[in-house]
Formats: sequence, C-alpha cells, structure tokens
Amino acid sequence: MASFIWKGQICDSQDRNTLRVRENHYLVCVEDRCMGVFPTLPEQYRALPLEDMGDRLIIPGMTDLHIHAPQFSFRGLGMDMELLDWLNTHTFPEESKYRDLDYARRAYSQFTAHLRRSETTRACVFATVHVPATTLLMELLEESGLVSYVGKVNMNRNGPLYLIEPSTIASVRETRRWLEDTAGRFARTKPILTPRFIPSCTDDLLYRLADLRAEFGVPVQSHLSENLGEIAWVRELVPTAQNYGDAYRKFGLLGGETPCIMAHCVYSDEAEMELLRDGGVFIAHSPESNMNIASGVAPVNRFLDLGIPTGLATDVAGGSHESLFRAMTHAIQASKLRWRLLDQSVPPLTFDTAFYLATRGGGAFFGDVGAFDPGFALDALVLDDGNLDHPQPLSVRERLERAAYLGDERNIYAKVVNGLRLF
Amino acid sequence: MASFIWKGQICDSQDRNTLRVRENHYLVCVEDRCMGVFPTLPEQYRALPLEDMGDRLIIPGMTDLHIHAPQFSFRGLGMDMELLDWLNTHTFPEESKYRDLDYARRAYSQFTAHLRRSETTRACVFATVHVPATTLLMELLEESGLVSYVGKVNMNRNGPLYLIEPSTIASVRETRRWLEDTAGRFARTKPILTPRFIPSCTDDLLYRLADLRAEFGVPVQSHLSENLGEIAWVRELVPTAQNYGDAYRKFGLLGGETPCIMAHCVYSDEAEMELLRDGGVFIAHSPESNMNIASGVAPVNRFLDLGIPTGLATDVAGGSHESLFRAMTHAIQASKLRWRLLDQSVPPLTFDTAFYLATRGGGAFFGDVGAFDPGFALDALVLDDGNLDHPQPLSVRERLERAAYLGDERNIYAKVVNGLRLF
Repeated sequence: MASFIWKGQICDSQDRNTLRVRENHYLVCVEDRCMGVFPTLPEQYRALPLEDMGDRLIIPGMTDLHIHAPQFSFRGLGMDMELLDWLNTHTFPEESKYRDLDYARRAYSQFTAHLRRSETTRACVFATVHVPATTLLMELLEESGLVSYVGKVNMNRNGPLYLIEPSTIASVRETRRWLEDTAGRFARTKPILTPRFIPSCTDDLLYRLADLRAEFGVPVQSHLSENLGEIAWVRELVPTAQNYGDAYRKFGLLGGETPCIMAHCVYSDEAEMELLRDGGVFIAHSPESNMNIASGVAPVNRFLDLGIPTGLATDVAGGSHESLFRAMTHAIQASKLRWRLLDQSVPPLTFDTAFYLATRGGGAFFGDVGAFDPGFALDALVLDDGNLDHPQPLSVRERLERAAYLGDERNIYAKVVNGLRLF
Repeated sequence: MASFIWKGQICDSQDRNTLRVRENHYLVCVEDRCMGVFPTLPEQYRALPLEDMGDRLIIPGMTDLHIHAPQFSFRGLGMDMELLDWLNTHTFPEESKYRDLDYARRAYSQFTAHLRRSETTRACVFATVHVPATTLLMELLEESGLVSYVGKVNMNRNGPLYLIEPSTIASVRETRRWLEDTAGRFARTKPILTPRFIPSCTDDLLYRLADLRAEFGVPVQSHLSENLGEIAWVRELVPTAQNYGDAYRKFGLLGGETPCIMAHCVYSDEAEMELLRDGGVFIAHSPESNMNIASGVAPVNRFLDLGIPTGLATDVAGGSHESLFRAMTHAIQASKLRWRLLDQSVPPLTFDTAFYLATRGGGAFFGDVGAFDPGFALDALVLDDGNLDHPQPLSVRERLERAAYLGDERNIYAKVVNGLRLF
C-alpha cells in the first residue's frame, strides 16, 4: 500500500460547474487513499516521502466508460459509414480474429500499452465473444496496473455466423465459465456482463444474463439509443417495451441491484431518461464516435440536470483515439454544434463540465474516484506542458485547458492508479 | 534549384472524389517542379539523386488557407464564447501586444517553428495592424522555407482604441509603406491585403484598400458570413449590399483582377455562393474554429458542386491546432453532424474529399500546387507511421486515413516546399 506526498499545481473538479485550482499545494496519499490537498503540509504527514512536481499540473486520473479493445486495431479507419453498416463491414470481421489467441495477444498487448500511457486510469472495456481472448485481455490489463471492468460480449443473433455464438445455451455456458474463472481472480480487473445490444441477443439469452447478473453480483454494460435505425429495429424486436431502455429493464438488465453503464443515449427521450435516472444508470457519452459514425449528439447537460450519472468515453473504434483529452474537446465541440444546429434549450458544455465528466463523473462508477476529496482512491496524473510553448504567462487553469486541446501522451509525466505508480 | 527522386508509397488527389495511390513508385523533381510519378524510373532521370523512402508514405504538402499568427499564443484557450465576444475578450488584447517587437519576435518565432514542423507547406496568414511586427513575421516565414502570403491587418473602427488604427489616412499610409517594403523583397513570402472584416473597416478605408489592390496587384483575404450576429451587423453597416459578400464586392475587394480568399462562409446563401463562384473566390473552410466558437458548419460539398474553389484552414486560434490533419478530421466530423442535425441535402465529406481540400483544393490558390501532376510545384511530405502500431496488414490507403486521424508532427519524416527540403 502506497503512501506519499506530491507538491504541485493541483486541479480537480468540485462539481460539474466548478474546477478547483490549488497552486503549490500538497496532495497526500496514505495507503492508496487521498487524504486531501493542503496549502501547508500537516504535521502528521511530515515523515512521508515527498516529490516536488514543481510547476507541473497534478490532476485526477480519468475514466473511460466505454471502449472496445478488439477495435483498437482498426482505430482511425473506415469512418464513412453509419452504425449498422459499419458493424457488418469493419467490426464483425475484425472481432472474429480474436478466436486466434496469438492474434489476440498481439492486438491486446498494443491496446493495453497505449491505454497505460494515456490519460485513462480506469476503463470499462468490451472484449469479444471469445472467453480465452477475454481472459487474456484481463490478464494484460491486470499487469498494466490500470483498474478496469472487462466484458466478454454476448451475441447470438443478427450477426455473421463466423462470429455469433451458436445458441443461447452455449452463450450462457461460456459466460458462466468465464465468470467463475475471473470474478475473484484479479485485484484490479473485474468482469462485467456485456450483451452487445438488444438486436444481437435473443430474449431468452437476455433473461439468462439477468440470472447470471443476480447470481454473480456483477455489473452490466451495453449500448442504448445510439442511432435511429437501431432504435427502430429494437422497437420491432421488443414491441412490448415503452422504449429501448425499457427493453433492457424488462429483461432485468437495467436498474436493479448492480450498476449499469449504457453507452451513447443520443436519442433517449424524456421517458427513457427518467428510466436511466431512476435506475442509477451511468451514461457513457461518446462524442467522437457519435460524430464519426454520424449518430448525432447526446444532450449531456440535460442528463446532468436530471441527475443521471454521466461520464466520458472514447468508444474506440467508433472513436479514433484512446485519449480522454480528445474526448473532452470533442464533447465540447459536439455540444456547441448541437446547440447551434439543433436545440438551444440545452447549453453547450463548458471546459469545466467536460473535465468533470472525464474525472469525477465517470470515476463515480468505480466508487469514490476521480477527485482529490479526502477518502477518495488516489488516481492521479502529473502533466508536464513544457513543450506547449507560449510567449506570455498563463494561469494554471489556462494551462490545463490548453493541455486538453493540444496535449498528448508525451505530456503525461507520471501516473498513479489506486495508489500504484505506473510511471 | 533542386532535382531529386523519391521512391515510396505515393498518394495524392486526382480530383475531389479520387485519391490516387501508387505503391513503390518514383516521384521525380527537376528544378523544383514535379515531373510526375512513375512505376519504373524513366531513362532520362537515372542520373538524379534517389532516396528510397521504403514503406513510408509520400503525399503532397498541405495548404492552410487561413491562420492568425498572433493568435497562436493563445491557441486552445478561451473557447467558451461566440465570435464577437471572443474577439473583444481574447483576441484584441493579445493582438495589441504585437506593438512590442520583442514580444512579436518571441511569439512569431514559436508560431513559425511549429508551422515549419507541421503538415503545412503553404499558408495564408493574418498578422496584426502593426507594420514592423508584420514585416518581422514575413522575415521569419521566409527563413523557415515555407511559402506564404502574409497580411498586415486593417481595422479602423469597432475595436478597442488600444488596437485600432487612428484614421483611414494612417491605415492606408501604413499599408502602402508595408507594401512598398515587402512586395518584391522575398522569394517565398508575399503581402496580401487584409481588411479584418467589414465591421472593422470604414467604407472609405475599404475603397482605399481596393485602390492599393489595383496599384500593387496583390490578393485579398478576409472573413465572410461566419456568424449570425456578425451578418446582421454587416447588414446594418452596408444596407445597400445584397449580402455580406456583395458588400466586399461593392468596395472592390471581392472578385476582380487579383485572387481573393474568404474564410468561413458558414451562412452564405445561394446568391452569395454565386457571387463567390463568379468571382473565383477561394473559401477557407475552418471546421474546428466553426465548432469552437459555435458558428456552425459550412456546406462544403455544396461549394464544390457549384465549382467554388475551396480549401482547408486551421484558423488558429479559433481553431486550437496548426495541424491540417486535424483540420481534415474535424471537417469530416463537422460535415457529418451538419448532415445528421441540419440538412440531409448536402452529403458529409468523405476522407478522399477532405484530403483533396487540404492538398489540391487549397494549393490551387498558389497555382499548380498540391498534387504530383507533371508541372506542379514540388511540395511533399514523407510520413513515417511506424509508431501507429497495428496487429494486421493495412493498405497504403488505410495507413493514410489512420495517419490523418492519429498522426502528429512526429510522423513527418521529411518535408519539401517548392523543391526546397526543410528537413
């Protein structure tokens, strides 16, 4: 268990509207937990090792609420399609390769190495249907020091025969085998149930996954209301549901005892948003993906007004890049176009809110994570923005905004996840 | 005058819809001009020095049709405002600092160093009202090896007293002094008339600038139809004009003998677009800027359908970054949201079209520039994408798309501008 002190220019989110900047303060970590941020070092911590980060910025680690590990291999490619065509043309053929464990090792090692170097400290990850490759991905993520939930994907219909699972029984059996193997095995890496989306799973499979959810006490992640064609399809597939979200609820996979994440929610109406709020469901807002596959823009400030827990996601490979800095700036940019072109009732995101989403907002899925409040898990990044030159003095706040727009992994000088220093 | 041969994976645009990929071909440069691209090396060039770029990509240099050099110092900052407030709060105070030549040297040296390392080989640059600093910027750009047009800005109304020029006479006198000093002085760097925009310039100043345009035969750059508040203001200021573009035309600054660039054109209606087409005016499409200051999205494919010459622009510091790769991906993303949220009559931009805009489209402002056609000026980049790892084979075309989404200046292995090798 790690105990240490960092001194530097400390920034975190107090709430969705308030970026806290504490200059030349001390961040104290005792046994992997944040003790708080102090202008002078309290007497009781004077014996702890102190590292002076000088003029560098110290910020909370960031949470990526939705990323597809097997799609990392084709990030930045094939962006000229909408969701359903994009799945059939690019995604499904690539995901089928993870049947081959050698290929999976090569690809997942690259994914994990990039994620380790990125702003991300915690992530909720989709794998593929394949249990051996999914377990391998969990081993690699565990070794990386990152904290994650990883999902073996379930899909037993409406996909190519070379990829989908041959039956409900096979899908449930494999999922159970995987849960039994991994549920208690890792310190930092946990399984999460991952039905791909309603069109990919038969009703009986969804009911059986809800049974596994109850039996193993694991959380759930899936996709919701990303694209208009998808929504119309779900309406046909589950005609008794009030809306797409209600379909998950009917099958026992939204709301209830264990936490849920739903990615996108671009087209959630008021009834669906109420369902998400009442179920405590986290929305994984994926702005770059929603631009790249021409889905639209989710009304993020509306989610926050309603009290729906919301965080950011890169959604690689709908999104091209694993950087949550990029996700922050894409979220701001997309929200401005939504406001300008579609709906002036939902104001654009400010920088402060985007930073909140990337840190505290998404971090909450993992508990007390994503800020430097006393008692929070200690996830932190040290940013060195020395290469972002400028001719005039800048405030710490300005330097943080600039780092989000212009920085990349070269600017991450140090990274701690749950007290563990990765570099 | 440079003559050389590069061998590699050669990509350029044939037209707005057609990306040409020629693998393991020879690109021949004789006396700064492209002789073409050949599958085997023609006999007459066998004596020229050959560099084998191996599996690297060779692409044309890119043209940035609109960038503000003095705003580079606050790139990535203050993105929470619309145009007119943003000018008053951020832009004008910063631009006033360029009265101080020491500050200008520090800031413009940083700007020029970044531009030299970027994808940009040619640029159309706004400076400030200050002649000494503008001339200094031209000297620095000339030394960099880049090819550029640089404009001393004119503004004598509706700006802060600490920045605007005190009278029409003073503005014209300074502009004449600057043109006489710089019009024939540099090999690679030329002056361009730069009224900031209609609201910044009195009618008599605009008429006098048209006189200077005729006298010196210099081109013109300005801003057009970026923001709804700005357009309403211009309607009040020039009530006799049919539209904003027509106001420039009436003053003798749009259409006519020398080339023009108008940045943005987000809200140009059909009449204004016809005016631009008939005047051969280049549109500098600035997608990131148009998102960041919530202007909207220009209908780029409509411009191209009408035959209006169009290129890409970073518009730093409305845009945060000098990278034209980023401008390409922002252009695609913004066009998809425009299509999804506003208007399905104008299709989104494909990757091929975005690449065309960044190379051949904008390059045409400089003549035969932006492709590897025989007779074109030799502007080229060599891309090394070795750090963009992937587990599977990728085609050259896929590697180019990926480099645009994921690459940065680290991927630029070599750069030639008009035959001159910069690195």
